[in-house]
Amino acid sequence: MALDPLPRGATAFLVIELQNDLVHPSLVGAKGLSGKLAEAVQSRGVLPRLAALLDRFRGAGVPVLYATKERHPSIPLPTGPKIYRAAGKDPKLMAGTWGAQVVDDVKPQEGDVVIARYTSLDPSHGSELWSILTQLGTTTLVVAGISTTIAVEGTVRAAANRGLRVVVVEDCCAVFPEEWHRFSADKVLPLIADVVPADEVAAALPRA
Amino acid sequence: MALDPLPRGATAFLVIELQNDLVHPSLVGAKGLSGKLAEAVQSRGVLPRLAALLDRFRGAGVPVLYATKERHPSIPLPTGPKIYRAAGKDPKLMAGTWGAQVVDDVKPQEGDVVIARYTSLDPSHGSELWSILTQLGTTTLVVAGISTTIAVEGTVRAAANRGLRVVVVEDCCAVFPEEWHRFSADKVLPLIADVVPADEVAAALPRA
Amino acid sequence: MALDPLPRGATAFLVIELQNDLVHPSLVGAKGLSGKLAEAVQSRGVLPRLAALLDRFRGAGVPVLYATKERHPSIPLPTGPKIYRAAGKDPKLMAGTWGAQVVDDVKPQEGDVVIARYTSLDPSHGSELWSILTQLGTTTLVVAGISTTIAVEGTVRAAANRGLRVVVVEDCCAVFPEEWHRFSADKVLPLIADVVPADEVAAALPRA
Amino acid sequence: MALDPLPRGATAFLVIELQNDLVHPSLVGAKGLSGKLAEAVQSRGVLPRLAALLDRFRGAGVPVLYATKERHPSIPLPTGPKIYRAAGKDPKLMAGTWGAQVVDDVKPQEGDVVIARYTSLDPSHGSELWSILTQLGTTTLVVAGISTTIAVEGTVRAAANRGLRVVVVEDCCAVFPEEWHRFSADKVLPLIADVVPADEVAAALPRA
Repeated sequence: MALDPLPRGATAFLVIELQNDLVHPSLVGAKGLSGKLAEAVQSRGVLPRLAALLDRFRGAGVPVLYATKERHPSIPLPTGPKIYRAAGKDPKLMAGTWGAQVVDDVKPQEGDVVIARYTSLDPSHGSELWSILTQLGTTTLVVAGISTTIAVEGTVRAAANRGLRVVVVEDCCAVFPEEWHRFSADKVLPLIADVVPADEVAAALPRA
Repeated sequence: MALDPLPRGATAFLVIELQNDLVHPSLVGAKGLSGKLAEAVQSRGVLPRLAALLDRFRGAGVPVLYATKERHPSIPLPTGPKIYRAAGKDPKLMAGTWGAQVVDDVKPQEGDVVIARYTSLDPSHGSELWSILTQLGTTTLVVAGISTTIAVEGTVRAAANRGLRVVVVEDCCAVFPEEWHRFSADKVLPLIADVVPADEVAAALPRA
Repeated sequence: MALDPLPRGATAFLVIELQNDLVHPSLVGAKGLSGKLAEAVQSRGVLPRLAALLDRFRGAGVPVLYATKERHPSIPLPTGPKIYRAAGKDPKLMAGTWGAQVVDDVKPQEGDVVIARYTSLDPSHGSELWSILTQLGTTTLVVAGISTTIAVEGTVRAAANRGLRVVVVEDCCAVFPEEWHRFSADKVLPLIADVVPADEVAAALPRA
Repeated sequence: MALDPLPRGATAFLVIELQNDLVHPSLVGAKGLSGKLAEAVQSRGVLPRLAALLDRFRGAGVPVLYATKERHPSIPLPTGPKIYRAAGKDPKLMAGTWGAQVVDDVKPQEGDVVIARYTSLDPSHGSELWSILTQLGTTTLVVAGISTTIAVEGTVRAAANRGLRVVVVEDCCAVFPEEWHRFSADKVLPLIADVVPADEVAAALPRA
């Protein structure tokens, strides 16, 4: 059963947190979560596949957006949520640095929109994402990036809360460990989104 | 390792969607998702355990809030998110009916706050929940209810996005199938929240 | 220059805070702000004019929504904004009381949606208003009620922030003193909304 | 009656839309709204007074934030709100250009936070402003900038909706015509905020 067509003028593509400090190929083999994430992204072939898909979307005139997570020296991390207590001493994703930029393989092109945020766990809160989608007239949101379980799934849940149709590009997402990717992609996400591979998404593109 | 104390005057307890049409004991054995949910709630002993815990919290002067999902005849369901396409023909949770009320075993008491919503998949969007928590001065949110994977986890993620500390009462949550409860409670939620049984939560209560 | 037609299926009517404790006719002549507000509503003929207009909208199949402000005994008023420091000792608008209900002359009918809130100065924050409008597919919002300067203007500003077209029914709004109504209706609101009398709004209705 | 002290560690200063394309001194005498705005800013002496005040705040360790309005080539202006229909053909405030930058006299210093947005009429919607304030622990927000009536007043109203205490630096705000400034500063804003001159604000600063 093919994916329903992506509506012309009402589809947007969102790339989530594929930033150098998190998934740059040079991190493969490094200790810590970033090493594992970079490895998952590489072993699943996310970057070249996504680069090709983004070109298809740009060619079809679909707006491409990037959600990035950044740190600002004047804005402290929350102390409430447990995940932040485990954050390393080593500052990452500092605004204005190479580490906060999207990796070159899938980097933003002219006309793309980069939506940075400082404060939240996933792009669903605090940024201008939803306002921009409203302004673009988006009813169908296509998402890819990392991590499948946290930022991608969090964004998909929030999009469903707002009544959007969501398409998850399954083979352009990753998380460590792979078991987590499978649970999110095979069990939870299909309840609220179409979870399909890149070639199926490309086939549903509106023609330019 | 005991749970860090719940701060006096800055803790609130949120009960999620334990409504008659979803988990009333009479549904045990019925066909469909509600039958399975009611069964999960019963077999895990959620209702009596939660009733006792809520009494402890009320006794300690902690605000108790309820998030409920309701249907309004003039507000259509979204057509975008896949989950709504599977919604049965049989209308449930209609505002003003018995089915939309919280089950008697854990029903709201005088002074509790019931926060109903019509439009979203989980209580994190569209309702006055966050504004009320801000007004109450809440920094630590304790949550219980259903379903572990969808409305509970969605609320916990959104609370983390807002920098709140969250405590999930693990044995007062349920979902079908049990494997889903385990994945959420054992893997995802511990990243962003303290996931502990009711007796441990009670032991961390501020004294009245 | 007549008002552009109100789009069929994409228009909603919002009635703001015409509640007994604020504008019931019996308050005319009473001391304090409510007496003055009730007087302004009466002298401008808001209630009968709005009642007739609402019937026209319901007849045309346009969704009618009510935004109400209520107090909950467990939710304290904010202490930050100056306006709350002036709030009388005498509790008003208590949830569940006559005082919090919409005045009989324009009371909600079957199928209308009442959106109560506890925490904010105007209906633009904290309630499910925007989520419900999104779900209804609303692109044009018609507003009436009190007070022109605070809750009505605040809602119109917030609607403009979200890209909605707004129509203010000028002779179905009021505030004390009248000079404030004039400044809002003649200067500020026309920047962001169509500000027109009820008969002009009725003439722009979609036919049922 | 002096202004209540600004709480140490819980105060933030927000500068609103003092951008080159709107108020650069070279615009004084130019046709159109920007010419008038630039003139109002100059004749009220906003820039030098604000520059001195910001130095005092930075010296006291208070976080300084800037809200800016920008245009992105891929994000269309809303067509709903009337104000946008009057927007000139001449594109202003394009992201990445000099015109979108804050004027040199009060430009951001190292450690300040610039919060840009593309979609809304005032900074209260769509940006990360509120999330950042929450993360900073802000309970008292000091605001200055333009225009008094639209973006400043809109932000003050929204802050009041969230329960924040707000202080408006009256002689560091401006709008055209002056009558509008007076109505906002003398009538509406004092209902919900302390509206005071810069020297009074400086006197209420927490000591570093």
